[in-house]
Amino acid sequence: MYKKDRNWKKIVDQDVNSPRYIGDIKVKEVIVRNTLYDEDSYSSELITDIKMLKNKGSKKQWIEVVGLHEADKIMSICNLFDIHPLTVEDILNTAQNSKQEEYKNYLFINLKELTIGNDTNKLETSQLSVIYMENLIITFKESETETLSDICKKLESKAPISSLGMDALLYEILDDLVDNYFLVLDEISEDIDNTEDALLIDPQPDLLHEIYRLKRILIYMRKVLWPTRNILNKLSKEDYYDISNKTTYYFRDIYDHTIQMIDIVETYRDICSGMLDTYLSSISNKTNDIMKVLTIFSTISVPLTFLTGVYGMNFINQPELHFKYGYHIFWIAAVGITFSMLYYFRKKKWI
Amino acid sequence: MYKKDRNWKKIVDQDVNSPRYIGDIKVKEVIVRNTLYDEDSYSSELITDIKMLKNKGSKKQWIEVVGLHEADKIMSICNLFDIHPLTVEDILNTAQNSKQEEYKNYLFINLKELTIGNDTNKLETSQLSVIYMENLIITFKESETETLSDICKKLESKAPISSLGMDALLYEILDDLVDNYFLVLDEISEDIDNTEDALLIDPQPDLLHEIYRLKRILIYMRKVLWPTRNILNKLSKEDYYDISNKTTYYFRDIYDHTIQMIDIVETYRDICSGMLDTYLSSISNKTNDIMKVLTIFSTISVPLTFLTGVYGMNFINQPELHFKYGYHIFWIAAVGITFSMLYYFRKKKWI
Amino acid sequence: MYKKDRNWKKIVDQDVNSPRYIGDIKVKEVIVRNTLYDEDSYSSELITDIKMLKNKGSKKQWIEVVGLHEADKIMSICNLFDIHPLTVEDILNTAQNSKQEEYKNYLFINLKELTIGNDTNKLETSQLSVIYMENLIITFKESETETLSDICKKLESKAPISSLGMDALLYEILDDLVDNYFLVLDEISEDIDNTEDALLIDPQPDLLHEIYRLKRILIYMRKVLWPTRNILNKLSKEDYYDISNKTTYYFRDIYDHTIQMIDIVETYRDICSGMLDTYLSSISNKTNDIMKVLTIFSTISVPLTFLTGVYGMNFINQPELHFKYGYHIFWIAAVGITFSMLYYFRKKKWI
Amino acid sequence: MYKKDRNWKKIVDQDVNSPRYIGDIKVKEVIVRNTLYDEDSYSSELITDIKMLKNKGSKKQWIEVVGLHEADKIMSICNLFDIHPLTVEDILNTAQNSKQEEYKNYLFINLKELTIGNDTNKLETSQLSVIYMENLIITFKESETETLSDICKKLESKAPISSLGMDALLYEILDDLVDNYFLVLDEISEDIDNTEDALLIDPQPDLLHEIYRLKRILIYMRKVLWPTRNILNKLSKEDYYDISNKTTYYFRDIYDHTIQMIDIVETYRDICSGMLDTYLSSISNKTNDIMKVLTIFSTISVPLTFLTGVYGMNFINQPELHFKYGYHIFWIAAVGITFSMLYYFRKKKWI
Amino acid sequence: MYKKDRNWKKIVDQDVNSPRYIGDIKVKEVIVRNTLYDEDSYSSELITDIKMLKNKGSKKQWIEVVGLHEADKIMSICNLFDIHPLTVEDILNTAQNSKQEEYKNYLFINLKELTIGNDTNKLETSQLSVIYMENLIITFKESETETLSDICKKLESKAPISSLGMDALLYEILDDLVDNYFLVLDEISEDIDNTEDALLIDPQPDLLHEIYRLKRILIYMRKVLWPTRNILNKLSKEDYYDISNKTTYYFRDIYDHTIQMIDIVETYRDICSGMLDTYLSSISNKTNDIMKVLTIFSTISVPLTFLTGVYGMNFINQPELHFKYGYHIFWIAAVGITFSMLYYFRKKKWI
Repeated sequence: MYKKDRNWKKIVDQDVNSPRYIGDIKVKEVIVRNTLYDEDSYSSELITDIKMLKNKGSKKQWIEVVGLHEADKIMSICNLFDIHPLTVEDILNTAQNSKQEEYKNYLFINLKELTIGNDTNKLETSQLSVIYMENLIITFKESETETLSDICKKLESKAPISSLGMDALLYEILDDLVDNYFLVLDEISEDIDNTEDALLIDPQPDLLHEIYRLKRILIYMRKVLWPTRNILNKLSKEDYYDISNKTTYYFRDIYDHTIQMIDIVETYRDICSGMLDTYLSSISNKTNDIMKVLTIFSTISVPLTFLTGVYGMNFINQPELHFKYGYHIFWIAAVGITFSMLYYFRKKKWI
Repeated sequence: MYKKDRNWKKIVDQDVNSPRYIGDIKVKEVIVRNTLYDEDSYSSELITDIKMLKNKGSKKQWIEVVGLHEADKIMSICNLFDIHPLTVEDILNTAQNSKQEEYKNYLFINLKELTIGNDTNKLETSQLSVIYMENLIITFKESETETLSDICKKLESKAPISSLGMDALLYEILDDLVDNYFLVLDEISEDIDNTEDALLIDPQPDLLHEIYRLKRILIYMRKVLWPTRNILNKLSKEDYYDISNKTTYYFRDIYDHTIQMIDIVETYRDICSGMLDTYLSSISNKTNDIMKVLTIFSTISVPLTFLTGVYGMNFINQPELHFKYGYHIFWIAAVGITFSMLYYFRKKKWI
Repeated sequence: MYKKDRNWKKIVDQDVNSPRYIGDIKVKEVIVRNTLYDEDSYSSELITDIKMLKNKGSKKQWIEVVGLHEADKIMSICNLFDIHPLTVEDILNTAQNSKQEEYKNYLFINLKELTIGNDTNKLETSQLSVIYMENLIITFKESETETLSDICKKLESKAPISSLGMDALLYEILDDLVDNYFLVLDEISEDIDNTEDALLIDPQPDLLHEIYRLKRILIYMRKVLWPTRNILNKLSKEDYYDISNKTTYYFRDIYDHTIQMIDIVETYRDICSGMLDTYLSSISNKTNDIMKVLTIFSTISVPLTFLTGVYGMNFINQPELHFKYGYHIFWIAAVGITFSMLYYFRKKKWI
Repeated sequence: MYKKDRNWKKIVDQDVNSPRYIGDIKVKEVIVRNTLYDEDSYSSELITDIKMLKNKGSKKQWIEVVGLHEADKIMSICNLFDIHPLTVEDILNTAQNSKQEEYKNYLFINLKELTIGNDTNKLETSQLSVIYMENLIITFKESETETLSDICKKLESKAPISSLGMDALLYEILDDLVDNYFLVLDEISEDIDNTEDALLIDPQPDLLHEIYRLKRILIYMRKVLWPTRNILNKLSKEDYYDISNKTTYYFRDIYDHTIQMIDIVETYRDICSGMLDTYLSSISNKTNDIMKVLTIFSTISVPLTFLTGVYGMNFINQPELHFKYGYHIFWIAAVGITFSMLYYFRKKKWI
Repeated sequence: MYKKDRNWKKIVDQDVNSPRYIGDIKVKEVIVRNTLYDEDSYSSELITDIKMLKNKGSKKQWIEVVGLHEADKIMSICNLFDIHPLTVEDILNTAQNSKQEEYKNYLFINLKELTIGNDTNKLETSQLSVIYMENLIITFKESETETLSDICKKLESKAPISSLGMDALLYEILDDLVDNYFLVLDEISEDIDNTEDALLIDPQPDLLHEIYRLKRILIYMRKVLWPTRNILNKLSKEDYYDISNKTTYYFRDIYDHTIQMIDIVETYRDICSGMLDTYLSSISNKTNDIMKVLTIFSTISVPLTFLTGVYGMNFINQPELHFKYGYHIFWIAAVGITFSMLYYFRKKKWI
């Protein structure tokens, strides 16, 4: 996500009249799937001729677009349904955060899918834009992911959702997306657990980078969750747009989930700060321990070195050197000094 | 509590039409107790056939459900009284924080019981959901605890509460729960006291983990107290729902208690931060002390080692070696140097 | 104050119908003083029979109660004047923070007296509750202090206050109390000054505890000042309760004083944080200085020890040993090395 | 920018009646360019006689002034169009932050251009003031930069903007300016990346200054972005001034961009704090490593030095000295001690 | 300023009926200057008989009082113009922060003059109170400073201000005062520059006290600027008191200046925090450097000392001692060991 934030030059070059895709994700080909359904029937097919998308019947329609790198295709779809140029720009500007805008003929919702990259262990985002009109929903997905695939199955199996209005489909889309965030939180919480355990057993310098990585992911998650929360708050208000009061209850449910997640993210951030403190003070403790070893050895050596030095001197009259048991007394003294110093350090609780 | 936060996958799999219990606590069997009372009479029995719960008389009714792991049983009770599926989901989703929701036919309140685990010393939460209707209160407790048991006794002994409305019973339930939080605070404050004392006498590395544990418990307590405060604030507003103005005064009393507790939790967090600072600077002081010992010994040894080295050399003409009292002068010099250095360190306040 | 915060169990056991005193302060006996006054007359006497308190004339009345440990006595006084049971609970629950509540027949104000304990050097609080009715003020003081004693003298000497309404008496009570806080601030500011001076001259580990103590007192002071500020803000609003607009100006004056004190408390907290930083970095500087001494001695000793070692060896052909001035050259070399190293350290600014 | 903040004395000396330029940037000469355009025609010329600026026709007019150091010229232009003296002061007071003010006959917008100085690597600001009237826009640029030059070309090439109202020109000006901020962010994000990489490979003291420089630039950027955000928020409100609702959508687009940038600046500040923590703990780790080397060498030397000392003594009866293989045993002991100590340190994970 | 904050006892003793001056500044004598002016005339004289101040004509009047220590004189002036006793108390209570109060017959504004003491280098405040009535302004200055002296000259020279209303005079007074703050900021910014430079060249312990002093001054400046900002915000609102809309523009100009200063103060505080971090980490770096020197010398000495020790031993059969070139080989080994270790440290980048 962080890298993607930096495609500024592309943003600067962008022009309302010829918007360009900002991101780096390239799907092989932009796929357009057209789904028509009502209570009794269901048809879904890949479309290549965009003009075929125009819905002539009274069936409910869902157009799924996957891949954003062919800006022309996106524009021609949008033109077909009379979408404002600024909305097209927003669909392609994947560096922007989630937001929601109401236009005369449609409601535009911009959301983020989150995954933790398998190789990089970094948080990766891809954009999901939703255009919500009467009898029509268009979704623009930046990358090919599993999200939304369950909804197709539900429609095909004629689940209750088929007989409900477009707002029920919108609910299913948002619910699917927000549920995905829980899976990211699951990975993070496992990493936090592992880091905490490692911290208590043996704190190594690489833990610092791990804590730092987790903190950074949490910063980005919060950045994504807050606007999502705001969008859902609006959707769960009574009499918003043409959403039925019955569905409003369900949006409030997703809204509660986002609050729950923000709560957890905040708690995790506190835990990460705590881990950082623990790590730093464990380094201080280690230095302390090393100092102790050094000091114990050095101080014990001082009197011993002095003694050996004294009896290595060449003065003419060092009487001790000629004592019969001088050498034995030296050893007794040396051992005695060592043990009394060890005893002193033990009393000071250094050993 | 922290572990329970992580049952995300269960949340993701959850479906409004067939909600599942999120938590880990398993009561042997889900117990359903039906209590009917009014000013004059009182009857309380365990129920196995759920249809028996339907109240036909004009008596006030309290249904206590203990244990949540049999989702079917919970659902059939809720269906009997026309509870919205989303409420059932909330009753079973024990990872969610306290909240309150008004439906057409009832008021739903979701609260947390707090205990500090005997073995783990961690904060454990279990959920208590309350459904408040005209002439009926249903409580769903996640685990078998002592909470609410006193209220039964009050009803049985025909205390004044028997003759009052359902709002008085609601007050008793909330009061009992919030009073419980004080007991948790009591344990924490004792632990803080002990930690502080230990910190002043002899700061050991395990104190850091203790401070960290306390900080974490306080983070969770605040997380629980804030929404509880908001719920009680609403209940203590005049003309809220069908709560009589008289009872409103009493809700304001519990509300004041939650504010008092939030206050204390904040103060305790400040104290914990202070203890962390004290701990860290005590490590610095220790390192300092160890350094002093090392430095004193090392610096005293330098001139002595040099002297013994000098007179251990084998130069042909070292006149001192042949002085009659050379060896004695050496000893006088050695003792003199040692004492003058000790005097210097004393002056520097290192000893 | 901190200790008193912990009487949770008493709070839990407390019951609206039989409230109990939460605190630890025991006055010998609960004293009840009844003062009747108007423009022309003044009478004040200690009362033992509580029924005697009922005011039959048209004089203004002030009932002073000192000591809270006899809950029965407090309750019977309150019952006499139709005080709500929750107010009685608040009077006895001295762990609660300052607050203000309006009832139909009276205004209840709960405040804190602050002193710094002579022995403990900790902030001690005792509660002062005020019940304000038409023609009657009742004050409940938790401990025997000097506060309010000046007001009696003013009434006795028939100062202008005698001829004014009850709101003037309320002003005098609050003014006396808030003025007291200034005296506490005075002690703290003196302690801060002393700590700062000690910090600049010679930072010792016990300063850390002093800074910590001051920070803690300031945390509690802020905790007391904020609700006091809010109470006075309400009282200084025009047309609040039956307080005359003229008196409102005076309440605004006390309100300004509380803001002034909150300001100062915040500034003192900033200063304390600054002192903590100074203390910590002074420890680092000390370690640095010790390290320098150690390093200077150790590094100078290295070449000298090597030299003496070399000429203490027993190789057969060490030509220097047999030079006539070998020993003198050795000394010149030793002194030369020492001085050149000292010069090097001087250049590095370590000496 | 920081230096420019300090021209206080000039501000103090400034007088509404004779305002002076506060900044340090000197363009060779103040350039005044007068552009007249409508759907069909376009003329643009440099003007020296300021009276020539008065527009007599019905064409749309844009007056570009580059350079502020000739206060008289600025004043005479302003007087020509009846600009309030305080606005003139604001145009010349380049130390002030962005703001917007409505006067009876015009709208005044004060903005900042941002660049990162090639030599200094510091953030440099120059001011851009816009006066927006009916059929006339006057822009005052403090320094000669590329900004706005594209707009001239658009007008000359009769892009759609030529046929739209003055609000479209205002949009182009603001869009150009805000797009510029992205380029600054681009440079910063590259520097952050480089710093992070350097931090992971080999943290050197100069990285601290780099982190510090980046933090400072981010502080200033936020300081500039917030008021810009507020200005655009106002402009994107419906029915503000005489801006058409159609253009309002476009202002909302720039507004979204500023929010996006504030978001990123906040995230970058978090990252910088994280880098600082990493840097500081990497120093601690280094000290730790150095300590380990020192301790390992010192402790190994202690027994060896003692041994050589012992057998360098001159006692008469040291039997080991006369053993045939005494010397060989000594070497075996020395090597044995060294390896067993190395083994011990390996076990302690110090090696 | 800090010292003055501590005259609490005087505040406690203060009584509304006989207010006392709280501060320490003593002007030789309280000076009262009476200035009468209109478009055509100007007279200004020192007054000793306070009754002479009563303005009988229709001229605009400005009474300047310098010095506050003679409370009686202040009171009698206030009584003459019917000023409320609480205002008199506020004029004399110089420990209070800036504020503004409206009374029936006048507007009271309380402001602070700021200077940095020449000797102490601390921020010193003195109070300036303004009473604004119809046709009359009274100013009370605590100390003799240059502030306001320019305004007299303007009036004398019949500048445009003479012909405008009293609100123009009020503007001049506030403008003069706020301009003064810029001069203080100028001194601070120069000190910050010097401190930063010193920090990069050679961080000494006394820099910590300098940073600490600057932080403290900035804390106080913010404390003074915020209420000033609020006062000016009120004055720059349309239709406030009897201030003409024309002058309102000018008050908005001063208001912008205060915001500009608050901005700068906040930025400077961030810079000070950054300097503190730099200072602390520079100490760590220093310790690190010292440790390196120590470690290099100590570790090089270990093998050398061991070698000299070995060949100083007195074993009977140490063959090396009898080699012809034993001594020379020893020297080669010693030099070789030293250089290979130096090479190792160079590779570790310690040298």
